[in-house]
Amino acid sequence: MHGCGKTPNNVTIDDAFWNSFRETLVREGIPYQWDALNDRLPADTEPSYCMRNFRIAAGRETGKHGGYVFQDSDVYKWLEGVAYSLRWHPDPALETVADEAIADIAAAQQPDGYLDTYYIINGLERRWTNLKDHHELYVAGHMIEAAVAYYTVTGKRQLLDVALRFVDHIDSVIGPEEGKLHGYPGHPVIEMALMRLYEITGDPKHLRLAEYFVNERGQAPLFFEEEDRRTGNAFHWKDSPFRYQYYQAGKPIREQKDAEGHAVRAMYLFSGVADVARETGDESLKQACRDLWKSTTKRRMYITGAVGSTEYGEAFSFDYDMPNDTVYGETCASIGLVFFARRMLMLEAKSEYADVMERALYNGIISGMQLNGRKFFYVNPLEVVPEACRMDPHKQHVKAERQKWFGCACCPPNLIRMLTSLEDYIATETENTTYVHLFVGGRIVSGGLSLDVTTRYPWDGNIHFDVHADRPVSRTIAIRVPNWCHAFTVRVNDTLVSETPRDGYIHLVRIWGDGDSIDFEMEMPIRLMRANPRIRKDAGLVTLCRGPLVYCLEEADNGSDLHLLRSLSLANARIQWEPQTLGGVVTLTTEARRESKSGWDELYDDRPEPAATPVELRWIPYYAWANRGLGEMRVWIRK
Amino acid sequence: MHGCGKTPNNVTIDDAFWNSFRETLVREGIPYQWDALNDRLPADTEPSYCMRNFRIAAGRETGKHGGYVFQDSDVYKWLEGVAYSLRWHPDPALETVADEAIADIAAAQQPDGYLDTYYIINGLERRWTNLKDHHELYVAGHMIEAAVAYYTVTGKRQLLDVALRFVDHIDSVIGPEEGKLHGYPGHPVIEMALMRLYEITGDPKHLRLAEYFVNERGQAPLFFEEEDRRTGNAFHWKDSPFRYQYYQAGKPIREQKDAEGHAVRAMYLFSGVADVARETGDESLKQACRDLWKSTTKRRMYITGAVGSTEYGEAFSFDYDMPNDTVYGETCASIGLVFFARRMLMLEAKSEYADVMERALYNGIISGMQLNGRKFFYVNPLEVVPEACRMDPHKQHVKAERQKWFGCACCPPNLIRMLTSLEDYIATETENTTYVHLFVGGRIVSGGLSLDVTTRYPWDGNIHFDVHADRPVSRTIAIRVPNWCHAFTVRVNDTLVSETPRDGYIHLVRIWGDGDSIDFEMEMPIRLMRANPRIRKDAGLVTLCRGPLVYCLEEADNGSDLHLLRSLSLANARIQWEPQTLGGVVTLTTEARRESKSGWDELYDDRPEPAATPVELRWIPYYAWANRGLGEMRVWIRK
Repeated sequence: MHGCGKTPNNVTIDDAFWNSFRETLVREGIPYQWDALNDRLPADTEPSYCMRNFRIAAGRETGKHGGYVFQDSDVYKWLEGVAYSLRWHPDPALETVADEAIADIAAAQQPDGYLDTYYIINGLERRWTNLKDHHELYVAGHMIEAAVAYYTVTGKRQLLDVALRFVDHIDSVIGPEEGKLHGYPGHPVIEMALMRLYEITGDPKHLRLAEYFVNERGQAPLFFEEEDRRTGNAFHWKDSPFRYQYYQAGKPIREQKDAEGHAVRAMYLFSGVADVARETGDESLKQACRDLWKSTTKRRMYITGAVGSTEYGEAFSFDYDMPNDTVYGETCASIGLVFFARRMLMLEAKSEYADVMERALYNGIISGMQLNGRKFFYVNPLEVVPEACRMDPHKQHVKAERQKWFGCACCPPNLIRMLTSLEDYIATETENTTYVHLFVGGRIVSGGLSLDVTTRYPWDGNIHFDVHADRPVSRTIAIRVPNWCHAFTVRVNDTLVSETPRDGYIHLVRIWGDGDSIDFEMEMPIRLMRANPRIRKDAGLVTLCRGPLVYCLEEADNGSDLHLLRSLSLANARIQWEPQTLGGVVTLTTEARRESKSGWDELYDDRPEPAATPVELRWIPYYAWANRGLGEMRVWIRK
Repeated sequence: MHGCGKTPNNVTIDDAFWNSFRETLVREGIPYQWDALNDRLPADTEPSYCMRNFRIAAGRETGKHGGYVFQDSDVYKWLEGVAYSLRWHPDPALETVADEAIADIAAAQQPDGYLDTYYIINGLERRWTNLKDHHELYVAGHMIEAAVAYYTVTGKRQLLDVALRFVDHIDSVIGPEEGKLHGYPGHPVIEMALMRLYEITGDPKHLRLAEYFVNERGQAPLFFEEEDRRTGNAFHWKDSPFRYQYYQAGKPIREQKDAEGHAVRAMYLFSGVADVARETGDESLKQACRDLWKSTTKRRMYITGAVGSTEYGEAFSFDYDMPNDTVYGETCASIGLVFFARRMLMLEAKSEYADVMERALYNGIISGMQLNGRKFFYVNPLEVVPEACRMDPHKQHVKAERQKWFGCACCPPNLIRMLTSLEDYIATETENTTYVHLFVGGRIVSGGLSLDVTTRYPWDGNIHFDVHADRPVSRTIAIRVPNWCHAFTVRVNDTLVSETPRDGYIHLVRIWGDGDSIDFEMEMPIRLMRANPRIRKDAGLVTLCRGPLVYCLEEADNGSDLHLLRSLSLANARIQWEPQTLGGVVTLTTEARRESKSGWDELYDDRPEPAATPVELRWIPYYAWANRGLGEMRVWIRK
C-alpha cells in the first residue's frame, strides 16, 4: 500500500457551500477573535488576556498573567489561520495587524530563546518543571505551526526565527542526552509541528526531536512520574480509569491499541506519529497508526465525526460507548481527527481516511460555529434538551446554544485554521496520480494539469471537472467514491467510463488534454441510517443522512418532546433546497408518528401503547442546528 | 378526607416471603453490621470507627475520631433495628450487646447533655457552628429514634434518658428565643424523631421543637447563609442548580412545590412535616405534604420506587428525568419514601400512599441487600453494564455488585431498621376501622379482632383472613386494592361479596365473629408496563411487572448485550415458581427477539434492520438481581 503523496501547491477554492463559511470567518470570525484576544468583547464575555500577556512579558505593560498556562496558544492558532486566509483572501490591513502581533510576540522572547508568557511573567526559575500539565511544549507547537504557515504564505521570517530560536532552546533542555530532561509534552501538538518545520528547514534536528517525543512517551521509568516525584506536582488523574493515558503517556505508542484518554491529545499525537512514520518509513509506527485509526473510527466515533464520549477528562471511554446527550465531542477533537485522517491518507491511499475526514468536516466540525461566525460550541452533542443542560450538572458541559467565548478558547481559533486551510485537504498528488479526496469547487493544479471543479456538493452529487493543460499529460486522476455512495457514473468527455473503485478511488488513466472533462455523478438519496448494534445508546434508533451530511431534528421545526417521535418512513420523503433557510440548506421531509402524552397521570402503567398520530418531520443538516434560538435537538430517533 | 389512624400495637409477621429477609437480617445482618461498627470486618473493607469513637469520646480509649462527622448515626440506626428485632425475635445475648453499646454511648455524654463524638473528640468549642453540614442534629435525630424504639420494646430507659438530656441541651441552644441559634438541621430526621418522642413523652417541648424545625427552615434571612458568613464555612452547592434546596432550605416548606435537592433529606423532611401536620392539624402543612407527594411520586419516581435521579448531590433533578443507568436511587431514599408514604396514609386513607409504600418495599429497598444479608447497594440502578461502571467515571457511583460496607454506611443499618419494623407498615386502625395496607402473613390484632393472615404474596394474589374474636365486634375491615390489581374477588365466609373500592380500599362492614373468614383474591397476571411518555429515557421501552414486583433481565439468564433484546411478547408467557432459584422466586418466561451483531464492521450504515432471532427471556424479580456474579442487568427493554 502506497501513500497518496503530498498536497499540491496550488489548490484554490470557489465553492458555494464552503465560500460562505470561509468568508464569514474572514469577515467576522478573524476580527471577532482578534477582539477577543485583546479583551475587547463585551464585559459579559470570558476574558482572554492573551495579547496582554505578551505585552507584559515584553515589559511593555505591567500586570499579572491572565488565563490558562497555555493561553499563548490562542494567538498562535489565530495567526496560523490568518496566514492561511491571506493565501486566498489577501488583506494588507489584516497582515499589518498580524505583523504587529508577531512583533509583540517576538519582543517577549527571552535571550535564550524561551517564550511562554506564563513563566516569563510568573518566574522563569519554575519553567520546564511541569511538562505534564503546564503546556510549554504545546504552546511551542502551536507557535511553530503558526510560524511555518505565516512564513510559507507571506515569506516573512520574524515569527519563524522566533520559533527556530525557541526550538533550539527546547533542544538544549529536552532530549536523550545526559543532563537533559528525558521528557515530552503532556499535550501533544509539537510532534506534527516539528514535522512541518522539518519540511521547510530540512534540519535533521527537527526530525530528531519529533521522533524523540514520539518514541520516548510512555517509556519506563515514566518521565511524568519522576517529574511529579521531583517537583511535587499533583497528578489529577490518579483515580481515573485512564491515568497516564489521559496524557497519551501510559504506554509506548507501539503498545497502545486503543484511542484512550483526552481526545484532542490523542488525535494530535496520532497525527504526529503518522507524520514521523511517513517520513521515517518505520513499519511498526505505521502499524501503530493503523491500530489507533481502527480503534478511533471503527469503535469510538460518533456519526457526526465527534470523538470523546465523556466529559470526564474530555476523553475517550470504551468501545461502542456513544451516549448522545452526555458526549463531549469537542470541536478541536474532530479537527484533530481530520489532521489524523489526512496523515493516514498520505501513508496509504485508502478512501476510508478521506471518508472520515469528510464526515468530521461536514458535520461535527462546522457545527462548532454559529452561522454568523460569532459564537462557538466546544461540545457537540447529538441530543439536547435545554432543561437537562440547565438542571443536570452532569450535562452542564453540553450547551444548548453556542457561546461567545471560552476561558479555555481552544476551539474558535482551531476552527479558523482548519477552514482557512481547507485547500490542503482536497487533493494530493504523487508522481503519476492526482487524488481528489473532497468535492469542493475550485481549482486543483497538479502534475501539469489544472482541474476546474464545479459542484453544488454537498447538496447534490454531481462533480464536474474541466481539464486544462498546456500540453497532453499522461496521468491518473483518482477520484474518491465516498463510502456513503452506492451508485455513481463517470463520464470522460461525455462518454461513460466503467471503472471499479480500487481502495475507494476510481482511477482514470489516460493522456489528458486541454478541454477534457470529467463528470462524476453520485446518486444522493436520503439514507436511513442505523448504528452498529454494539452501540447500546443507539439501539432501536435511526437517523437520516444524505451525501456526507448527517441530519437532525430541531424543536423549531418539529415541536418539543422530540423523543415522542417514531416510526420514521421514507415512503413519501421529500428533498428540498431552501435558499432562505439557515444560509441555504437542503431540508428533508419525512413521515413519522408522534406518540401522545395525553391521558397519562401515573408514571408507570400497563395500559396499551400510546396512540401515535402521523406527523411530517422536517430535518436540517446537523451542522446548522442551534441557529434559531433555544430548543431541543436530536440526531437519532426511534425507528 | 380522614386519616387511617395509628398502627395497631399488636401485629406479628409470619410470612414466607418476608421471614427469609428478616431472619437473614437477624442471623447475618445484625451481627455482621455489629462487626462492621467495631471494625472487625476483613481488612479490605472500609472501616467504620463508629464504636471506637464512642469509647474515645468517653475517655475509655485514646485516638482520633474516625469516619464522617455523622458517624455516630450508624450505631443508632443499628440499635433501632436491634430494638425492633427484639419485638419478634427475643435474643438475650443480642440485648446484652445492645445494652453494652448503650452504656458506651451514655459514657460519652457530656455533663450538659451534648453527645456527638466528632466534636467531643475534636473540640467542643466548635460545636453548633455548622448546622448546615455537620449533622449534629441528624445524629441526635437517629439517637432519639433508637432511644424511643429501645425503650418501647425493652422498657429500658438508659438510652432514652441520654436522648432526653441531649434534646434538653439542643432546646437550650436552638430555638426562636433571643440568644439561641435560629437554626435547623442541614440533614433532616430529627423532626420525625421528635414527633415519636412526643408520642411517648407528651412533653409539648418536643412537639414545639419539631414544629420550629419544620417552620423555620428556608425562612429569610436564611440561617445557613448567616451561619456561613459568621463562621466562614464553605457552601459546596453554590454553583449547583438546587443551591440551598440541597438542604431542603431554599424556601419555606409551604412554598416548596417540588421534590428537590438531596433525596434522603427530602424524604426525611417530608416525613417529619407530615407528622407535624397530622399532630397539629395544620391545613397548609397538609397541603404542602400533598404537593410534595405528588411531585415525588407522579413526576420523579422510578418504577422500582427509587428516587433521586442524579449522583450530583444524591439528588432529585427535574420532572420525568429518569435515567436508568446513571440513577442514584439510594436505598435510604426509598426507605425515606416509605416513611413519607406511611405518614401520608395516616393523614389520608388513600391507597395511593400504600401503593408507593409497597412499590418501594418490594423492589428498590430490598434490592439494597444481598440475599445473604452481607453485602449492600447504596445505589439501585435499573440498567447496568459492568464495563460502563468501571470505565465511565460518571457511572462510578453505580456498582454492578453489592459492596461489603461503605465509608458512609447509612444504607445497611437503615435496611435493618426498616425490615425489622415491617410490622408497623402492614395495618392501621381508627376507632371503627382496621385498614390492611400490605399483604403480609401473620396476625393483626386490632379493635377487638384478631386477623390471622395467610398468603403466598407476592407470588400469588390470594389473601386469606381468619377472624378471631372473643365476642362479636361491629367493625369495618378495609382492605387495600393495589393499583396494579385489575380484577379481584372478595368472599366473606365463602360467600362472594360485591364491593366497590373507595379511595382504593374495599370496606367490609359487619359484625365479625370468631371463625369468620375473608378471602381476598387478586388476579396476578404478568403486566406489560410502559412509562409515562414524558419520561424521555423510557421512550419505546417496556418491562414486566407481576403483582407488586418489578422484573428484570440478567446476563446470567439471558446472555450479555441485553440492549439487543426487543419485540417482547406475552403470547406464550409462563409464570413459574422456582423454589431453588434466588431463595425461591417466581420467574417469568417470555418470547422476544435478539438482534444480531454479526456483519457489522462499520459504526454507522444504511443497511436494513439487523436480523433478529426468536429467543426466550427469563425474568427475575428486580430485588434479587446481582446475586449470581457480575453481569449486565436491565429493567426496561425495547418493546
